[in-house]
Amino acid sequence: MRLDLTQDVASLTAAIVDIESVSGNEKALADAVEEALRALPHLSVERDGDTVIARTSQGRGERVVIAGHLDTVPINHNLPSRVEGDRLYGCGTGDMKAGVAVQLKLATIPETTRDVTYFFYECEEIEEERNGLRRIGLTRPELLRADFAVLMEPSGGIVEGGCQGTIRVEVKVSGERAHSARSWMGTNAIHQAAAVLDVLRAYEPERPVVDGLEYHEGLNAVFVRGGVAGNVIPDECVVTINYRFAPDKSLADAERYLRKLFDGYEVTVVDGAPGARPGLTHPVAAAFTEATGGAVRAKFGWTDVARFSELGIPAVNYGPGEPSLSHTRDEYVEIPRIFASEERMRAWLTT
Amino acid sequence: MRLDLTQDVASLTAAIVDIESVSGNEKALADAVEEALRALPHLSVERDGDTVIARTSQGRGERVVIAGHLDTVPINHNLPSRVEGDRLYGCGTGDMKAGVAVQLKLATIPETTRDVTYFFYECEEIEEERNGLRRIGLTRPELLRADFAVLMEPSGGIVEGGCQGTIRVEVKVSGERAHSARSWMGTNAIHQAAAVLDVLRAYEPERPVVDGLEYHEGLNAVFVRGGVAGNVIPDECVVTINYRFAPDKSLADAERYLRKLFDGYEVTVVDGAPGARPGLTHPVAAAFTEATGGAVRAKFGWTDVARFSELGIPAVNYGPGEPSLSHTRDEYVEIPRIFASEERMRAWLTT
Repeated sequence: MRLDLTQDVASLTAAIVDIESVSGNEKALADAVEEALRALPHLSVERDGDTVIARTSQGRGERVVIAGHLDTVPINHNLPSRVEGDRLYGCGTGDMKAGVAVQLKLATIPETTRDVTYFFYECEEIEEERNGLRRIGLTRPELLRADFAVLMEPSGGIVEGGCQGTIRVEVKVSGERAHSARSWMGTNAIHQAAAVLDVLRAYEPERPVVDGLEYHEGLNAVFVRGGVAGNVIPDECVVTINYRFAPDKSLADAERYLRKLFDGYEVTVVDGAPGARPGLTHPVAAAFTEATGGAVRAKFGWTDVARFSELGIPAVNYGPGEPSLSHTRDEYVEIPRIFASEERMRAWLTT
Repeated sequence: MRLDLTQDVASLTAAIVDIESVSGNEKALADAVEEALRALPHLSVERDGDTVIARTSQGRGERVVIAGHLDTVPINHNLPSRVEGDRLYGCGTGDMKAGVAVQLKLATIPETTRDVTYFFYECEEIEEERNGLRRIGLTRPELLRADFAVLMEPSGGIVEGGCQGTIRVEVKVSGERAHSARSWMGTNAIHQAAAVLDVLRAYEPERPVVDGLEYHEGLNAVFVRGGVAGNVIPDECVVTINYRFAPDKSLADAERYLRKLFDGYEVTVVDGAPGARPGLTHPVAAAFTEATGGAVRAKFGWTDVARFSELGIPAVNYGPGEPSLSHTRDEYVEIPRIFASEERMRAWLTT
C-alpha cells in the first residue's frame, strides 16, 4: 500500500483510514508512512517498532514536535470510509487519521521556520505499556526533546488544553461454586456483582474547574466477565472500571478514591496515567493558540500531552476531528476542518 | 494409563478420578475404560467417539442399562484425589466417577440374572449437542433399548426419581458505544445489565410437588460478558441464565416463563432439556427401588434419565455421590457408600 502525499489532505485522510490499523495491527500503515517520508530528502527518518519519526535539521532556534497515533479502536462495521456531503465517515477518521494526514502534508514542506519532529506512533488506544510514544520516551527521550508539542488528537479544530487522567481497575466479586441445579448451596458472584454496578449507576460526575477550564469526569464499567460452566454457580465476577479524572487530582488520588468507593472488594489497578493541567500560560503555547485562532477549551480525554507535560514540554491538543465522535460507530470528520487545520499549521510553520 | 479392575471399588474410584477428564478431554479415561473392558470375554465392547458400550448377551428375558458419564466440570484446585478418613476428595469423585467405578466392578461379573448394557459416555456436563448418550440415542438407538435404566448420577445412595428440566438463555442488553472520556455520549450496556441481575436477585424459587416428590427450582446467571476496549463505553452485555424447572413444566413452558420475565430484552435460547416425571410407579422401577433399600426422593439436577424417559424406558438415578457436593471445590464421596452401592447392585444383578 502506497500513500501519495501530493493528493489533497482529505483524499489522503480517506486513503489512511482505508488502511485498517486497529491497535497492534499498525504495521501496514506504518510501512506506508515510512515509505512516503523516506522519499522526502529534507527529512531524516527512523523506524522503531511500528513508530516512525521524521526530523528536519535546519539549525533553527526552536524545535516543535507534531505527533499523532496510527492506531484505532476496533472497527465496528465502519470501514471502508465513505464521503457524505462535507463529512468523511469511518473508523479512525477523527481519532485521528485526519490529524495524521495533516502531519504528512506538513512533512512535505521543504523549509520551515522551526525545526520539526514528526512523530507517528502505535498503540495509543490500548494498555499504556504498548504505547509507542511512551516507549520512545523511555528508550530514546532525546527524540522527544522540543520547545513545544502539538498532538493531533481530535479537538474540533480548537486548541484543547491539558487532559484528564485515566485509571483502570478490576473489581473482583467472589462467591462460592455449586451445581446450578442446587444453586442454594452456593453464592452467585455474578448476582453479587449487581452491587458494584449499582455503585456505578449511582455515580454523579464531578466537573472541576482547573486553570480556568472546566473538566468533566466519568466512571464506567468497560468490561465484565464471569462464569465457569453452563451448569455451575459462578464463584467469581470481575468488573473492569475506567475512571476519568480532572487534572486537579493525581493518579494516587484517583486510586484512593476508587479503593474507598469499592471498599470490601478486591481492587486491582490494571493501568493508569495522570492528567495534565492546561499549561496554556506558557508563552510558546499561547503563541500557537493565537496563530490557530485563539479559541481554547478543556480536553476531556486523556491524551499523550500528559507525557510531554511530565517531560516539562508544554503541549496542546489540536486536531480536525470532533472528540465527542471518537470511538463511536458513526465517527466522522468534517472535511473543511481538515483543510483548515492544514492551512493554519502550514502558516504557523512557514511564517 | 491402565485401570486394574481387580482392586477394590474405592481404590478404583481414586484411580479414575486421577485421570483428569474435563468435558472434551475424556480420551485418556475412555481409552483406559475400553482397554479394561475388552479384557473381559463375556462382554462385547464398542467405542464411538469417547463413549464406550459393553454388553452381555446371555439371552435373558430382561435387559437393563447401567450408565454413567466419564467427564467432569473444570478442575478447581481439587486434583489429584486424596483420602481423609472415610472420604475421598477430588473433582468428579461423586459426580460421578464413584458411580463409574461401581459400573466397572459390576461389568466384571461373568454371569448376571439380567442382560446388562454398560454405558460410559462423554460430555454430560456441557452443551447437550456433545452429549455421548444423546448422540448414540440418535445414531444407534438400538444400543439404548432396555426394560429399565439406572443412571449412576450422585444420589447419596438413595434412589432419586425423575429430574428437573434445564434451559439456558442469553439475555442481551444493548447500549451505545462512546469514548470512555466522554461517557455521557453513550449508553453503558454493562451498567444497564444491572437491571437483569436485579430480576435474578429478586427471584423466589418455586417448590412444586410432582407425583408425590417435592422439587426445588432455580434461576441463575452462569455467565456474563461485556466490553469492547478499555476506553470504550460498551454497547453490549450478555447474561447467560440457567433456569432449572420442576417436571410439571415442559421445556416450552420454561421458555415462555423466561421470555415473559425478560420482556423487552433480546432473549436467545442456547440449549435446554425437558425434565422427567418420577415414574416410580412403573413395576420395574419399583422393584429396583425395593432391592436397593426402598428410600426414594426427588432429583433436583437434570440428568440423562430424561433421555430414557423420552424413549419410554423407566429410569432412575442411583449413585454413591452426594448430589449437593457436585461441582463444588470440596467435592467428595463417602467411601462406605461406594462399597454399599456396589454390593446392592451386585446382589440385584446376581439373584
